[in-house]
Amino acid sequence: MGRTYIEDLSQHVGDEVQLHGWLYNKRSSGKIRFLLLRDGTGLLQGVMVKGQVDEAMFALADELTQESSFMMQGRVRKDDRAPGGFELDVTGLKIYQIAKEYPITPKEHGIEFLADRRHLWLRSARQHAIMRVRHRIIKAIRDFFDGRGFTLVDSPILTPAACEGTSTLFETPYFDLGSAFLTQSGQLYAEAGAMALGKVYCFGPTFRAEKSKTRRHLTEFWMVEPEVAFNDLNDNMDLAEEFLEYIVQSVLKDRGPELKALERNTAKLESVRKPFPRISYDEAVAILAKKGVAFEWGNDFGGTDETLISEEFDRPVMVHRYPSAVKAFYMKRDPLNPKVALAVDVLAPEGYGEIIGGSQREDDLDLLLQRIDEHRLPREAFEWYLDLRRFGSVPHAGFGLGIERTVSWICGLEHIRETVPFPRMIYRLTP
Amino acid sequence: MGRTYIEDLSQHVGDEVQLHGWLYNKRSSGKIRFLLLRDGTGLLQGVMVKGQVDEAMFALADELTQESSFMMQGRVRKDDRAPGGFELDVTGLKIYQIAKEYPITPKEHGIEFLADRRHLWLRSARQHAIMRVRHRIIKAIRDFFDGRGFTLVDSPILTPAACEGTSTLFETPYFDLGSAFLTQSGQLYAEAGAMALGKVYCFGPTFRAEKSKTRRHLTEFWMVEPEVAFNDLNDNMDLAEEFLEYIVQSVLKDRGPELKALERNTAKLESVRKPFPRISYDEAVAILAKKGVAFEWGNDFGGTDETLISEEFDRPVMVHRYPSAVKAFYMKRDPLNPKVALAVDVLAPEGYGEIIGGSQREDDLDLLLQRIDEHRLPREAFEWYLDLRRFGSVPHAGFGLGIERTVSWICGLEHIRETVPFPRMIYRLTP
Repeated sequence: MGRTYIEDLSQHVGDEVQLHGWLYNKRSSGKIRFLLLRDGTGLLQGVMVKGQVDEAMFALADELTQESSFMMQGRVRKDDRAPGGFELDVTGLKIYQIAKEYPITPKEHGIEFLADRRHLWLRSARQHAIMRVRHRIIKAIRDFFDGRGFTLVDSPILTPAACEGTSTLFETPYFDLGSAFLTQSGQLYAEAGAMALGKVYCFGPTFRAEKSKTRRHLTEFWMVEPEVAFNDLNDNMDLAEEFLEYIVQSVLKDRGPELKALERNTAKLESVRKPFPRISYDEAVAILAKKGVAFEWGNDFGGTDETLISEEFDRPVMVHRYPSAVKAFYMKRDPLNPKVALAVDVLAPEGYGEIIGGSQREDDLDLLLQRIDEHRLPREAFEWYLDLRRFGSVPHAGFGLGIERTVSWICGLEHIRETVPFPRMIYRLTP
Repeated sequence: MGRTYIEDLSQHVGDEVQLHGWLYNKRSSGKIRFLLLRDGTGLLQGVMVKGQVDEAMFALADELTQESSFMMQGRVRKDDRAPGGFELDVTGLKIYQIAKEYPITPKEHGIEFLADRRHLWLRSARQHAIMRVRHRIIKAIRDFFDGRGFTLVDSPILTPAACEGTSTLFETPYFDLGSAFLTQSGQLYAEAGAMALGKVYCFGPTFRAEKSKTRRHLTEFWMVEPEVAFNDLNDNMDLAEEFLEYIVQSVLKDRGPELKALERNTAKLESVRKPFPRISYDEAVAILAKKGVAFEWGNDFGGTDETLISEEFDRPVMVHRYPSAVKAFYMKRDPLNPKVALAVDVLAPEGYGEIIGGSQREDDLDLLLQRIDEHRLPREAFEWYLDLRRFGSVPHAGFGLGIERTVSWICGLEHIRETVPFPRMIYRLTP
């Protein structure tokens, strides 16, 4: 008899199967023992009746403590009242290990207590649900690009120079070559990829050594960055909205039980359908003014501003044409108004803030050189990047989506630390 | 008229289309201009005939230099002699930029010259083919695990301690917490994931600050690491062979033209079918002895040894039960012979060496503590990992596959530096 997983039980109704996992919970009721087994794919209640198994076997059930590992054998019975739709009439047990004093009990624990035990906390139903949604989001992202002719171009993590200044970079000695910096963004490399392969994306961990201690910041986070040759700002927004719709609808389709376990209001996700509203920075500023916020034209939006703007809409809102002074050197300025850059930020609904930042890129060599000088960046470090404007420069655009913020939004979480298996923050590097 | 890509031309035979890209090559023959356009998805020859377009347009064709960016409009014609099966009868041209003196010419260049221009070198047909095979390999890996109920559990890059000693680690200051080290392997975290989610994999960049200057070593490389609760060494080998077969057959199925461009002998890949031979370390040593190699029992195999062993087989060979002294502390010893660990390395054919390393893990708390002490590792750093043996320990096993070595093998490359868009080696951190 081979191993069976809980998520596959619908194919085994009436069969005798063996399930392997850990005790999530148990109850006793006279001559009956209810054993709730988790195996990583779901939860299953096993029902053991005294007299129907031998005495020694029945006694084993009483030895099981929370998180003890065991094999449970029995016949699968359909039961619509059971959480997963099935129960097991237990005929056999085998204990692997009795766990002693598992530290995470059903009572409430403080967040630092749980975070210190992240390797165990991941076993809880809530964390389990988040990880499965995270995985589904990442799969949707890759499926989206793979299905549209994009080529994956992994950008390097170890880089010789900063993309956007050096103050918030992790630095490591690198043999005889001085220092290497951990990447903040793969974009510049993705641009080289787009000139070679047309439509590309990079997808990997990125790093910011920012001293931000907010519920939206991690020092290590994953980012996907598509880049498309011959795309302009409008194409970029078309891509971003199609992309976000695809992600959200994929999760809704395949992760209903997980969203339910997280008590997520899915109606708010159902409405994430294109077209998304597209407003200019000026229009966003007008919304703030209407709400009585003293906001000066030319500044970047803060978290509260983003929430106030996004509250006006039932789906993500795309804010375009930001003041070029607050945006990165590589963003192309609007030919109709050089004070603004052809940038777009996508703000998630429900106060989840910016989840996408992107732009059309400056494709003119001389203008790009000028920007690099204005931003006081070392020209030598960008010689290779400038080559992209020397040899067959073309209009192109792209954006970056932060995975953890997206997970936070789709799962409806209060803090980003739950969105990743082992979060890294300025005050946390363990476990 | 929208943008069309070369790879989609089969749907547009007889249509007038616009293609955007770069000049890969051109030829003149009297009143005809042959323009070879690359757009990242393929190559297409445009044929422009004097008199069929206006004079100014015809003159534009002569301005185009290698890697100049342009739009080419015309009618798609099926032509079985053409590389992709189609040609374009050109009716219009629009130039974006004339590239001046593109440094990479059809003549031979030295490897350092090309490596310094990696951002441009990626545009060559050969590099293009490698990147597309790399992408297909990565997609096959994710599809394999996603389709078999595994959950992705991204392990952290920034870690507080070393998995296998600290001498080959990149180190960065981390706020008030001292130093962080770049991960060498996500395995220990994947084990925590497997106890929570049953079947998991992590897949991300890993780092080794090794001073190895061989054709097989990068300082930054991607690794996928599955880990499965309740799997033993045999299950682990079953998984590894099914996995490798799936990867190779997926590439053969979908990347035939790329393998052809790389002049890969695909017969050698066709034979990568399970079952793979499984031999013990002792049997591998016997092969070396038979070939007259002076090899002492207890040592690890070197590159040359691996080649001599793998030469005996037409597909990957799985070598199991290595001397425990040369293997990591977390590997379980064989109960039948504690001198050997329940480890398995998979050696690729054709001298490509080890592409998979894995093992069943030590699941006994006391034995694991003993190994940590024997390896002189700091016990405090592993307290969280030891928790996995305290609270519901189970037999489990997993392995790691190095992506770049796999790309190297499947593409038939001589050096690993071509397997990744922007390689990092001890003497190279740019571009």
